[in-house]
Amino acid sequence: MKTRPTITGVHCTRFGELWEKSLYDLVRDAAEGALTDANIEIGQIDAIFYGNMLSGILDNNVHASGKISELLGVHVPVYRTEAACASGGMAFQMAYTYLQAFPGKTVLVLGAEKMTDFGGPQVTQALSAAASGEEQVAGLTFPGLYGMLAQTYLAKYGYTEEHLAHVAVKNHYHGTFNARAQFRKAITVEQVLKSPYVATPLKVLDSSPISDGACGLVLTNDAARISGRPGVAVLASEIATDTISLKGRKRLDGLDATVAAGDNAFATSGLDRSDISVAELHDCFTIAELLAMEDLGFWMKGEAGRHMADGITKLGSGGPLTVNTSGGLKASGHPVGATGIKQIGELYLQLTAQAGERQVADAKYGLAHNVGGSGGTAVVTILATI
Amino acid sequence: MKTRPTITGVHCTRFGELWEKSLYDLVRDAAEGALTDANIEIGQIDAIFYGNMLSGILDNNVHASGKISELLGVHVPVYRTEAACASGGMAFQMAYTYLQAFPGKTVLVLGAEKMTDFGGPQVTQALSAAASGEEQVAGLTFPGLYGMLAQTYLAKYGYTEEHLAHVAVKNHYHGTFNARAQFRKAITVEQVLKSPYVATPLKVLDSSPISDGACGLVLTNDAARISGRPGVAVLASEIATDTISLKGRKRLDGLDATVAAGDNAFATSGLDRSDISVAELHDCFTIAELLAMEDLGFWMKGEAGRHMADGITKLGSGGPLTVNTSGGLKASGHPVGATGIKQIGELYLQLTAQAGERQVADAKYGLAHNVGGSGGTAVVTILATI
Repeated sequence: MKTRPTITGVHCTRFGELWEKSLYDLVRDAAEGALTDANIEIGQIDAIFYGNMLSGILDNNVHASGKISELLGVHVPVYRTEAACASGGMAFQMAYTYLQAFPGKTVLVLGAEKMTDFGGPQVTQALSAAASGEEQVAGLTFPGLYGMLAQTYLAKYGYTEEHLAHVAVKNHYHGTFNARAQFRKAITVEQVLKSPYVATPLKVLDSSPISDGACGLVLTNDAARISGRPGVAVLASEIATDTISLKGRKRLDGLDATVAAGDNAFATSGLDRSDISVAELHDCFTIAELLAMEDLGFWMKGEAGRHMADGITKLGSGGPLTVNTSGGLKASGHPVGATGIKQIGELYLQLTAQAGERQVADAKYGLAHNVGGSGGTAVVTILATI
Repeated sequence: MKTRPTITGVHCTRFGELWEKSLYDLVRDAAEGALTDANIEIGQIDAIFYGNMLSGILDNNVHASGKISELLGVHVPVYRTEAACASGGMAFQMAYTYLQAFPGKTVLVLGAEKMTDFGGPQVTQALSAAASGEEQVAGLTFPGLYGMLAQTYLAKYGYTEEHLAHVAVKNHYHGTFNARAQFRKAITVEQVLKSPYVATPLKVLDSSPISDGACGLVLTNDAARISGRPGVAVLASEIATDTISLKGRKRLDGLDATVAAGDNAFATSGLDRSDISVAELHDCFTIAELLAMEDLGFWMKGEAGRHMADGITKLGSGGPLTVNTSGGLKASGHPVGATGIKQIGELYLQLTAQAGERQVADAKYGLAHNVGGSGGTAVVTILATI
């Protein structure tokens, strides 16, 4: 039997407006931190997987494999992948695939994005590169696309903007416990509802911010590196895709790529939904977390608004599943290439009981869900305490 | 024992100024052509690997996974990778890794680039994104970087610009036999030497062109799909990296990433250099093919200028190794994301005796060599007739 890939170390930089750091400063910090946490030298790394979306568009900066070779002094393969805001999740899934192919190897997985050096309109336009050309030409930014998903969901299931607001309130509350989160300030439903509209029904406080940040982790199937370290096993990591344009979808009250990736991941892992006690879901906008809870099969279709208002995924609620203890994209920030790695890093902390004030008691199994664009790509990863 | 990944179908679009086709028109043409050639339906494909460098910078167009899902009507994983001009080779190597991990699978590998819709200065600047920030700020375009490599090589080994010119003459001659090549016109040493300088000692006719084009191939380890089809086995595919900047290198008379990837590929394949009778090498500039012949161990250090002048890698020369029968990047064109796939596609034609007028007799083993930037990434793949 193959050795199961295991995470043995994680590091994220602080997320936020990090004007004193360049993109590759952040990549270096994440890499060195992850190696230190895993108690391993860079010379013991067999390959590097790197997720980044925007550096080509924003900074005329591609060919990350050569750049990271120079930065870290390595000559091993360095794979850059890009799947919009799922770039980090895809990099992780590629690393997992690599370790399925080659026994006895140890790899470094990195994700990073530098966004706040550029003006808001420039970043918004760059992010729209993840949408179809037709959607871009129509002026559909990502708040607009998720606004349409939210309109559909609220109308179909009889919910209000207040049901969305609870996601932001919960994730900001969680963010207060995360020293690396971009926002560490609790907010109220009233504050969310009074914040300005970005794309009806979504408001500023329904939206994840523009962020800088990087994360790294060490993944290995080398038994010698696993023993004696805090480790988390990867039970499954699955990718599914869907039409990039909303107009091509069968429905607008959920993301079928999430459904497919989730179903495949649960099938591969052999777990039931009820086994998962901690999850990091892709809440780029509040509506996205509601849809994800249903698409992943944690809640029945149309129930998410009600359950979210009941607060049963909040730390300390006593519910069976706590969601986005990191603060989610909403409060911890969303440096897009880093997000998928940060999610898995947060689960690593939870599943090795290193999450401090935001620890979910007795967490054994965790799920990470990373989305590209408005659902053209979804990555679902299931992790277990070892 | 694992099934050895096998190529069972290939298709390249014509390379050139294809103003009537969009990037994704080209991707569709390559995908459909490869599927047809492999006698397989899109629904039988388990994953797609896609190499593209510039669409983010030139066309505000990323998230190819969602775009290709929509284009081809698939929901399987679609991996976009980017390693500058080695994006195609890296996509192929990732597909090879995937098939090592998962038995019984069949994947589609695609590479594409759309460059000629944009102005020359815009494309030159976009291509410079593959260099380090310092090199970009210094005004070092890729002709400039390869010009420095050429200066070093000619001075160190006592060669002249005429020795470089023979590469272009040979590859243009080969291009006359390739109906899909951008340039199908033979040229003379005198014409090369009289063409204008781009970056001394490199001239226009030492340089590969700006091109549109796409290639696709089907790679499988499903025994049922392999039997009864013309197939080519992948014996090895290896990636190595090096500092992105020339200033960080130990030497400038070769590319150490090529040496490492080549040595690893030969070790994995179990072949000797003398087993290879056909090779597609990364001749973005004439100097690059000379360096590659030495770095890959086909010729001793410093011998390439002399052997090239002797013409022993030209079709019909009777030499043991024929190089760049496609016309190379120089004559067949260099749509950067497509190049690495085109190289392997050309070897597929050679090793299945489908190369027509440019067929190398009794070709059993072939080698493809794809470089990113000025050598920050190198991919070497070794193929065998089955």
